Amino acid sequence: MRVVRIREHGGPEVLQLDERPDPELSPGHVRIRVHAAGVNRADLLQRMGLYPAPPGAPSDVPGLEYAGEVVELGAGAKRFVVGDRVYGIVGGGAYADQVVVHEREAAHVPEGLSWVQAASVPEAFATAWDALTTRGGVQPGSRVLIHAVGSGVGTAALQLARALGCHVTGTSRTPDKLERAGELGMLEGVVSVDLGVMRSELLRIAPDGFDVIIDLVGGAFVAENIAVVATLGRIVLVGLTAGIRAEIDLARLLNRRATLVGTTLRARPIEEKILVAKELDRSVGRLFADKRLRPVIETAMPLAEAARAHELVASNKTFGKVVLEV
Amino acid sequence: MRVVRIREHGGPEVLQLDERPDPELSPGHVRIRVHAAGVNRADLLQRMGLYPAPPGAPSDVPGLEYAGEVVELGAGAKRFVVGDRVYGIVGGGAYADQVVVHEREAAHVPEGLSWVQAASVPEAFATAWDALTTRGGVQPGSRVLIHAVGSGVGTAALQLARALGCHVTGTSRTPDKLERAGELGMLEGVVSVDLGVMRSELLRIAPDGFDVIIDLVGGAFVAENIAVVATLGRIVLVGLTAGIRAEIDLARLLNRRATLVGTTLRARPIEEKILVAKELDRSVGRLFADKRLRPVIETAMPLAEAARAHELVASNKTFGKVVLEV
Repeated sequence: MRVVRIREHGGPEVLQLDERPDPELSPGHVRIRVHAAGVNRADLLQRMGLYPAPPGAPSDVPGLEYAGEVVELGAGAKRFVVGDRVYGIVGGGAYADQVVVHEREAAHVPEGLSWVQAASVPEAFATAWDALTTRGGVQPGSRVLIHAVGSGVGTAALQLARALGCHVTGTSRTPDKLERAGELGMLEGVVSVDLGVMRSELLRIAPDGFDVIIDLVGGAFVAENIAVVATLGRIVLVGLTAGIRAEIDLARLLNRRATLVGTTLRARPIEEKILVAKELDRSVGRLFADKRLRPVIETAMPLAEAARAHELVASNKTFGKVVLEV
Repeated sequence: MRVVRIREHGGPEVLQLDERPDPELSPGHVRIRVHAAGVNRADLLQRMGLYPAPPGAPSDVPGLEYAGEVVELGAGAKRFVVGDRVYGIVGGGAYADQVVVHEREAAHVPEGLSWVQAASVPEAFATAWDALTTRGGVQPGSRVLIHAVGSGVGTAALQLARALGCHVTGTSRTPDKLERAGELGMLEGVVSVDLGVMRSELLRIAPDGFDVIIDLVGGAFVAENIAVVATLGRIVLVGLTAGIRAEIDLARLLNRRATLVGTTLRARPIEEKILVAKELDRSVGRLFADKRLRPVIETAMPLAEAARAHELVASNKTFGKVVLEV
């Protein structure tokens, strides 16, 4: 099979096309001809050697999500038939023209999505779903704050929160992204270049604080979150682009009885990946089928241009996802 | 009525006996002749001016828990009859011979407990119950770590965790307290004087980490908690004797998908105080009635000696609770 591999840890230029033997097909598994694969920040970190692949995933082929067609069934596999359009998350290895997954880890592509659109969905929407519901416990009417609202997970969380009946405020370094997020249903946007200005603006918008904060930024934003979280509010930490350390005000966390919780999809064991596939089949998939959600894609480019795709994601200039076509 | 009031913010000597008009009895409320009141660290902070009373509570009379006898019923109050032995939590004002509470905020004293024993229960056991169950989500078999295990909340959490089928490890600065905690069912004790030594000892005891950590210490302990928490584990912050700020490793929080959550009883509105009373009537009360729990009391002293009681609590030499007899 054809893959994009990390030749050595470094810049985008270390990504190169390569050939690998086809993976074996175990019982209960399915072989999928990949048509498109989403690019995630975790792939960039893995390329730089800052985020080693989890056990069981190839160490040198990035790629956490795919959309493709079932081409072969392992012994006993019966959820799909050859030709089914499926998508899902994997621990790595999706920058390839083929993946093999347990049949319960894959989900049906919602009707009406192209390959590129489908490949943009699994990580962003599964992460956002998990962050908002399982970790965040949103309710209809919850005031939700989403940092980096223009990112892949940000635009997914914004749409899901709206579909769940929440009131959404978002932040971005770029006013243009806030405007585009407004078109997706965000009610207030705040520029996050100056954290002091951001804090007073957020407190003006929500004097009692935000019930659920989805933070894709981390670092110094965590202290800001604790300053603007509501009583019994929940801060869900999904990304750390601004840094991996934070100094926090424990007294405020305690008095607000607030929660700070971290989440990540990549490191999950098979039983939890299966639960993600179930959500992709049920809640997320049905909301797509009902046109309550739509994919937000900055651009798609060929697998051979993975390096350029990484540069684009690193630029922070994208709105929504970057996808590789295979 | 007789109260102990805070003359001005300062050391234990600012506590003095005083007379106040009896509080009015509103509909649905009950007047309680207080026989004993527990001392809590929050009372010491309030005395020093570091922790103002919540809205609705007297600003200058400390006391968050009481045990006593119903002496008068407000219009429509019907849960109790005059003479019933009750106990519960209040936002303040329990260093007094009388309190007035909504009848739904009070619970029946479990059979077999003296006034002093009953007054030692509400804050410690309600806090520990909330921390372990609502916030911590313990399950039978959960590995639970309790810091300051010899404190009032610590000894309560230890006993409750054991009653819920958990495996309990505890820390204390004092080996003697660890030995006494062992008699209450703690399986491993670790001295917490040197945090580096504590960390390696905890990782030796639980290489996969602790599922639930009940932290009554805060400050630098929070970083240690993040170092020893299990995947999907929960750190419940209940006290901050070691400091109100912490620098934390967000990457580890995220990769472990761990939760850091703060909790406090004092600031809660009436509907949540009622829920606390329900737990004191049901789970906690029944476990006391079944002798699965027992009060842990360092000493009791007269209300007039509240200053000495505060000195004793501040000394960190107590095991379990200090109670004032009225």
